[in-house]
Amino acid sequence: MMGLLLARYGLSDQSLLCIDSKSSALKSGQADGIQPRTLEVFKTLGISDEIENEACHMWEFAFWNTSQDKLKIIERKSVMPEVMAPARFPYEATIHQGRIERIMETDLSRYSKRAIVRNTKLLNVRLDEEGDPEFPVIAEIETSGVKQTIRSKALVGADGAHSTVRQNLGLELQGQSLDYIWGVVDMVVDTNFPDIRRRCAIHSPSGSVMVIPRERIITGEYLTRIYVHVPDAIKTGCDKAGTDSNSEEIQTGDARLRRRKVTLENILQQARDVFRPYHFEPKGDDTVDWWAAYQIGQRLSPEFAVRDSQGIDRVFIVGDACHTHSPKAGQGMNVSMMDSYNLAWKLAYWINGLSPISSNSGKPDSLLQTYQIERHSNAQQLIDFDRQFSTVFSGQFNEEEASISHADFVELFNTGNGFTSGCGVEYPSNLLVLKDFPGGDCFNPVQGTNYLAGILRPGRRLLNVKLKRFADGWQRDIQDDLPSTGRFCILALASSDLLDPESISATTLNKVFDITQQFPANTVEEIIIYPNLRQPFSWEDIPARVKVHAEMRFYNGYDLDDAYKIYGVDPSQGALVVVRPDGFMRQGQ
Amino acid sequence: MMGLLLARYGLSDQSLLCIDSKSSALKSGQADGIQPRTLEVFKTLGISDEIENEACHMWEFAFWNTSQDKLKIIERKSVMPEVMAPARFPYEATIHQGRIERIMETDLSRYSKRAIVRNTKLLNVRLDEEGDPEFPVIAEIETSGVKQTIRSKALVGADGAHSTVRQNLGLELQGQSLDYIWGVVDMVVDTNFPDIRRRCAIHSPSGSVMVIPRERIITGEYLTRIYVHVPDAIKTGCDKAGTDSNSEEIQTGDARLRRRKVTLENILQQARDVFRPYHFEPKGDDTVDWWAAYQIGQRLSPEFAVRDSQGIDRVFIVGDACHTHSPKAGQGMNVSMMDSYNLAWKLAYWINGLSPISSNSGKPDSLLQTYQIERHSNAQQLIDFDRQFSTVFSGQFNEEEASISHADFVELFNTGNGFTSGCGVEYPSNLLVLKDFPGGDCFNPVQGTNYLAGILRPGRRLLNVKLKRFADGWQRDIQDDLPSTGRFCILALASSDLLDPESISATTLNKVFDITQQFPANTVEEIIIYPNLRQPFSWEDIPARVKVHAEMRFYNGYDLDDAYKIYGVDPSQGALVVVRPDGFMRQGQ
Repeated sequence: MMGLLLARYGLSDQSLLCIDSKSSALKSGQADGIQPRTLEVFKTLGISDEIENEACHMWEFAFWNTSQDKLKIIERKSVMPEVMAPARFPYEATIHQGRIERIMETDLSRYSKRAIVRNTKLLNVRLDEEGDPEFPVIAEIETSGVKQTIRSKALVGADGAHSTVRQNLGLELQGQSLDYIWGVVDMVVDTNFPDIRRRCAIHSPSGSVMVIPRERIITGEYLTRIYVHVPDAIKTGCDKAGTDSNSEEIQTGDARLRRRKVTLENILQQARDVFRPYHFEPKGDDTVDWWAAYQIGQRLSPEFAVRDSQGIDRVFIVGDACHTHSPKAGQGMNVSMMDSYNLAWKLAYWINGLSPISSNSGKPDSLLQTYQIERHSNAQQLIDFDRQFSTVFSGQFNEEEASISHADFVELFNTGNGFTSGCGVEYPSNLLVLKDFPGGDCFNPVQGTNYLAGILRPGRRLLNVKLKRFADGWQRDIQDDLPSTGRFCILALASSDLLDPESISATTLNKVFDITQQFPANTVEEIIIYPNLRQPFSWEDIPARVKVHAEMRFYNGYDLDDAYKIYGVDPSQGALVVVRPDGFMRQGQ
Repeated sequence: MMGLLLARYGLSDQSLLCIDSKSSALKSGQADGIQPRTLEVFKTLGISDEIENEACHMWEFAFWNTSQDKLKIIERKSVMPEVMAPARFPYEATIHQGRIERIMETDLSRYSKRAIVRNTKLLNVRLDEEGDPEFPVIAEIETSGVKQTIRSKALVGADGAHSTVRQNLGLELQGQSLDYIWGVVDMVVDTNFPDIRRRCAIHSPSGSVMVIPRERIITGEYLTRIYVHVPDAIKTGCDKAGTDSNSEEIQTGDARLRRRKVTLENILQQARDVFRPYHFEPKGDDTVDWWAAYQIGQRLSPEFAVRDSQGIDRVFIVGDACHTHSPKAGQGMNVSMMDSYNLAWKLAYWINGLSPISSNSGKPDSLLQTYQIERHSNAQQLIDFDRQFSTVFSGQFNEEEASISHADFVELFNTGNGFTSGCGVEYPSNLLVLKDFPGGDCFNPVQGTNYLAGILRPGRRLLNVKLKRFADGWQRDIQDDLPSTGRFCILALASSDLLDPESISATTLNKVFDITQQFPANTVEEIIIYPNLRQPFSWEDIPARVKVHAEMRFYNGYDLDDAYKIYGVDPSQGALVVVRPDGFMRQGQ
């Protein structure tokens, strides 16, 4: 994701190197869930189609619990929408991680001839400001036994839970691991369990299982992933452990030993027990695609970046290198890609001298420092949520005896959904998120606090709305005018006085154009929305520069979605919003 | 399109040869409009994404006429939706024909290593049943001066208005050409005409222009196509004629001479006159991408296929080879591709011996004969519509003096819209379209006659509806379960008694499964929709074979779209529909 974005932001193969110790994209296993916000981002990159067309779309989450009726053993308690936040893609997509990697790699090859350099391992990395202080990052890499030393301005470690980058720079994951052991299996199943095509949380008297329906495979059959809580006492003692997942393996004595003893047959037997009275088996031979056993742990690095002696951020870590957690909320791949999505444009601005400070090279750039502020805060929320979710989910509970009830679990799922969907993420105040309004909150043109439903809020992503374009009547998604090109956008919600050339609305728009013209060409675009003006009008009735600068980004904001209502803006007041290159709002005014 | 479909239906490079006299996909000009039904078909092939993402979407059609106010000269009379028929894609997409060719060629290369053999010309074709009567079609082709003779079971000529195939087989285009001369230009324009981003028909005192907004090009600017009615008296006499379009060039003395005299400057000057008082120019140098001058003619071949002495259809013509007309209704590329879409699956069934008759090889196959019946009828409608539309459009009219008023023109556009969108096409009764119900119309389970709005009708395509899948709650488009795989589909709209195992609904479903199991494997699939049954139910409460055969094609038909209402089916009655491999309905019951 980082390599793709930097290549698209214009870094050539001469300036950019992306290495991978693996020899190819992943063949099986590991992550499989794409959250709604990640799909929105993929759409801004033009790479969402294959997922929209071929992934499994999880629309619903079914909750099964121990039944009061002893013959039934388990019963369905409720079915909820999988995604509760309003989102352009109101489902979670599941598809094999290797395909996601291939989709991104194919797109990368449009921008970079070299693309990913595989079979290449990072041996070590250090900062050395002697020699060339502009290129102080020294990395030693090895391809098929041949070592090379690379000097660079910056380096990003997306090298997983055992990150060499993190270890070399003296950072460490801090936190605790829980003793729960889980097994995960990808397979085609033969079952009469009625909700096998829905995401399910099943809590039976025998334990817990999570079901993740997956994409259709080449045989025409459908994959299913199950996560199974493996009970403490493993009866069979076979030593074969499954392929390690990227999730953390904490080597604490007891649990490690127990994990090593888990076999595929243990996991399947436990699943059979939980699914009773329904039958549950792999369908025929060779239908188990992948399996693994892992422990749940939540750990976080206190720092996501390391600075040189001038205070300039030079080495960054993203993804599992800075936070590890359980896979069951479907967050790992998503949060990790969003780390890179947050950092990439900031790096591009810094490298190209486009931020106010980076135009003086050799000075610390506070733009880069927002990466740590924004993504550490996000990772902390993730860790906190995952700890709660895993604890509740691993606990054996039924409604009669458990300390945590079915209702509590559903409640936790619901409140976490804004965060897990990626649609409710909110960054704290910083250089790039101005939550305080100049002159005080009474000048805030936005009414309402239901930010998840779309009310404009600095630090959150701009919700998609459907708008009708003035120039041609095209019914468009506003997010399609916010592609991931690295540009900022001024979103102007004009007020009802727009047709009066002396109005605040018209004069403000002209001021906006004055200001944006002062920025380097093509770094700022305008999107302009108008409310119901109660009379027909043509281009001549509004400020002429609207057509000059924003002819194809000038929208009727009420015929389709009521953008003013959704965004919480009074049409008699209007509002201005600064949208960052990653679709998050910097400020409103 | 024909090559792509046959390759996807399983014909290997050993059995299939697709030649093109051109050396590459088209570089500029010619067709540019993709109608809603064509997009639906592209979606069933998984090749609609690039068009959805990057084409211009025409949502609205603006009608401009001479104004009563002499200062205004012209004024906008009305803005209509471009597509009035309900369609999955409610717009016409415009994008350069070369990109459409490239999209299909890229997809073809997934199925055929050889793909399109270019720089290869058909010299002649004939039927010769001596020798090998199974391969009676003899074609001589030439690649870079090297000639080869090919024997085949069948040949399809998609070789344009001057079709060698048509001429060699003694077929001819019949009909008349009109004397109107039109110029067409693709360019980036500089204009203050307010509707330049909408499709427009402009009738000014100086003549007529049609505006077709086009896709954004690499410079970030937007192409515009204009069709200009060139007045009879060409003032300048430059001899340079534009590149020929595929549209017919009828060599009738006067008009031909006049057409040859048309220059780009003539066309632009005429456009300037029509657009007055608005200014209208190419934007800077080198922004004219392509231009041509053509005459309008409507001609049709009475036969679309030629048979051997056994009565077996062996040689077919599709597209401009069998019908030519004006380009302004945006039909040429669409109708031509739909000719192939109609014929390809029939050829595949015949070649594979899958139709009842073709399993006896050497006998005429009435399945193949339906191509002529269905597509000739469609072409005749096209010709009739185009003649009216062109006459009206070429006529200089204003509301005071014209014999055809603005209202008439809009009315013609509206009534033609079902046909031009491709969504209202209806084939006549034939082997594949059974309009009469066994036992008489009183047994017809479908109520209503507004077929364009979705009422089930043999001979029309099945309208897309949104349905919620029982197995997983996925909110899907029914057309996504009708991919272009060559399969037939039984669409069963179950009735409200489904939960009673002895009901007509349950026993009928079981009979459907009995019958479909008798067909070769994978040639027939079932889609099953249920109405509101007024109580929760699970898989055990309905016929077991629904889950066995149609687990992932079993839908709630009322929570999202009301499928019963849209399709005109009484939920207390239910209905069965046979859907052909091309998405058209054969019969209902």
